[in-house]
Amino acid sequence: MKVAVIGTGLIGASVGLAAQRAGHDVRGWDANSDALATAAALGAVDSADSADEAAASAELVVVAVQVTMLTTAVEAALAAAQDATVTDVGSTKGVLARAVAHERFIGGHPVAGAEVRGPEGARADLFQGATWFLTPHAATDGDRYRTLHAFVGSLGAVPMAIDPAAHDRLLALVSHLPHALANLLLNQVGAAPIEGHDPLAAAGASFREMTRVAGANPRIWVDIFLENADEVRSVLAEHRRRVEQLETALGRGDAGFLARWIGESATKRQELLRDAFEDTAELFRVHVRVADRPGILAAIMQALGAERINIEDLELHHVSRERGGSLTLLIAGEEAARRAADVLATQGYDVDVAPEIPS
Amino acid sequence: MKVAVIGTGLIGASVGLAAQRAGHDVRGWDANSDALATAAALGAVDSADSADEAAASAELVVVAVQVTMLTTAVEAALAAAQDATVTDVGSTKGVLARAVAHERFIGGHPVAGAEVRGPEGARADLFQGATWFLTPHAATDGDRYRTLHAFVGSLGAVPMAIDPAAHDRLLALVSHLPHALANLLLNQVGAAPIEGHDPLAAAGASFREMTRVAGANPRIWVDIFLENADEVRSVLAEHRRRVEQLETALGRGDAGFLARWIGESATKRQELLRDAFEDTAELFRVHVRVADRPGILAAIMQALGAERINIEDLELHHVSRERGGSLTLLIAGEEAARRAADVLATQGYDVDVAPEIPS
Repeated sequence: MKVAVIGTGLIGASVGLAAQRAGHDVRGWDANSDALATAAALGAVDSADSADEAAASAELVVVAVQVTMLTTAVEAALAAAQDATVTDVGSTKGVLARAVAHERFIGGHPVAGAEVRGPEGARADLFQGATWFLTPHAATDGDRYRTLHAFVGSLGAVPMAIDPAAHDRLLALVSHLPHALANLLLNQVGAAPIEGHDPLAAAGASFREMTRVAGANPRIWVDIFLENADEVRSVLAEHRRRVEQLETALGRGDAGFLARWIGESATKRQELLRDAFEDTAELFRVHVRVADRPGILAAIMQALGAERINIEDLELHHVSRERGGSLTLLIAGEEAARRAADVLATQGYDVDVAPEIPS
Repeated sequence: MKVAVIGTGLIGASVGLAAQRAGHDVRGWDANSDALATAAALGAVDSADSADEAAASAELVVVAVQVTMLTTAVEAALAAAQDATVTDVGSTKGVLARAVAHERFIGGHPVAGAEVRGPEGARADLFQGATWFLTPHAATDGDRYRTLHAFVGSLGAVPMAIDPAAHDRLLALVSHLPHALANLLLNQVGAAPIEGHDPLAAAGASFREMTRVAGANPRIWVDIFLENADEVRSVLAEHRRRVEQLETALGRGDAGFLARWIGESATKRQELLRDAFEDTAELFRVHVRVADRPGILAAIMQALGAERINIEDLELHHVSRERGGSLTLLIAGEEAARRAADVLATQGYDVDVAPEIPS
């Protein structure tokens, strides 16, 4: 298929690489000539001289410009390519769906990491296994939808149809709210010392985990928050309502409320893990004390690999160069977890095992 | 030194193991005879027949019972051991400090992981490198404080003196607030499907990270929240104020506020990482695509170990058995990170590198 990519940043250039790998022909253009040159040098796209020229001969146009420019760029692509299907990769869908109700336009959103910016970070497998939301509407032509669906699948992604408004509510909840809470938490905790103690210095590994997404690229996130402002405000208001409910329970010393509230959270965490890890076997944590030196992780991984024990997830809690840290391995099934602990204990490591969800 | 441990659960039994290793004599007692038998079988304590008998001959009594029983147990220990110094390991300090203003009592709180419960999970190195708060007061005898300080140090912990009220404010901020937010977030996101889409199924790896502490043992956490209810309510109220401020900024489309707010969070995250990782070298993320099979992590760790590249932190983002996942390594210094990426790329891995704090 002849594909045009308008905007060759991280996502656009990755679409180019993935599409070429899948056998498509890809022309590209970017308003920033450096970004276009880099994407072309990486082999992600053949450079066009303008957005219109890139779009003109395409069967599918993928618009991958920043959120605030989307409507303009999508309308230009629809005008330049008289018969092409046009899609986008913006992380909110409602505004665009309301602005462009064209039968040849179907919105899209690949849920793929954006830790880096620019075409330098582009990867052909960026979308491998990722959910790629598509927002067909009443006027959408079935053949065009099937073509786009197949294209997204050819990039390795898992297409999922959703209503634009539901998409924005869903993303507000699972992505924008956690991002906002990470920023809010870090800003509050780091606001001021408490009688000479710096709270950030007293924070542990789980606090670092909770705030890993805090402070993420403002050039991307300001636009995302503003574009989805209504939904984000609504989930924040609901969050405040829940915080207030907790404050009230604390105020009246309501142990029953707290126990139910924690229990509900434990149940939902089990659901979350079941969704994330296909094995239905219960997950166990194997906790290993490790010295901080090169090679120690290799030794541990090797010992487990030799026993054909697979690791579902792992975290390293670094303490310091002198004192080392600890490694937590998430392993499916109690038998495999106990076997992992035995293997490591035999090699002299200090190890313990516990269910991921303490009972 | 002759030490008595009252309450031989995870923390008490770990104190016993660590103290014996440091050459102290340890007697112990627990109201639950199974817990006491397990701790004795592990070699953590010599069993006493009662709390009073354990305390009677001790120079130092460590009270490690559940938070709600602390005041009673500390007062009993002070009465039973006429000359001993008495301390505790409770995770809040204000209530106890107000209840027991005895010159021989100095409160304490080791900040050590409690993923597991009961003496089965006890470890001699549980406190290695951990902060151990001590709350000396106006009536505290200098010699007793120095003895306790040295004892805590002999267990591998880092003693830190703090005012009881400041301790509770600090812990409300760096521990209880993040715990509460993890529970609140998971309960809100998992509350209901959105037009047939389960939000938990749409959540990614960073959401799992943010909610890792959610649903933690209600038998421990209900008591912690209630014991520190006033401070927790106060940080929650401040959190609500900050959420409302964000809602207002979103309501008026204030891009400047959002950019400053994210920027402030990015600065604080750098402070946090500087506090946690001693190297002043900037941290880089090396992102590697990995197949999901035993041995693959060993191969990667080995390649890096052979190059003497040290890993500060790592995360595995598991996608699925079929599609594999990705491994993110945190490495200090751009040179080491680039070298790591080159080594792995040479071996055929798909790798990219980015600063931990994107600019």
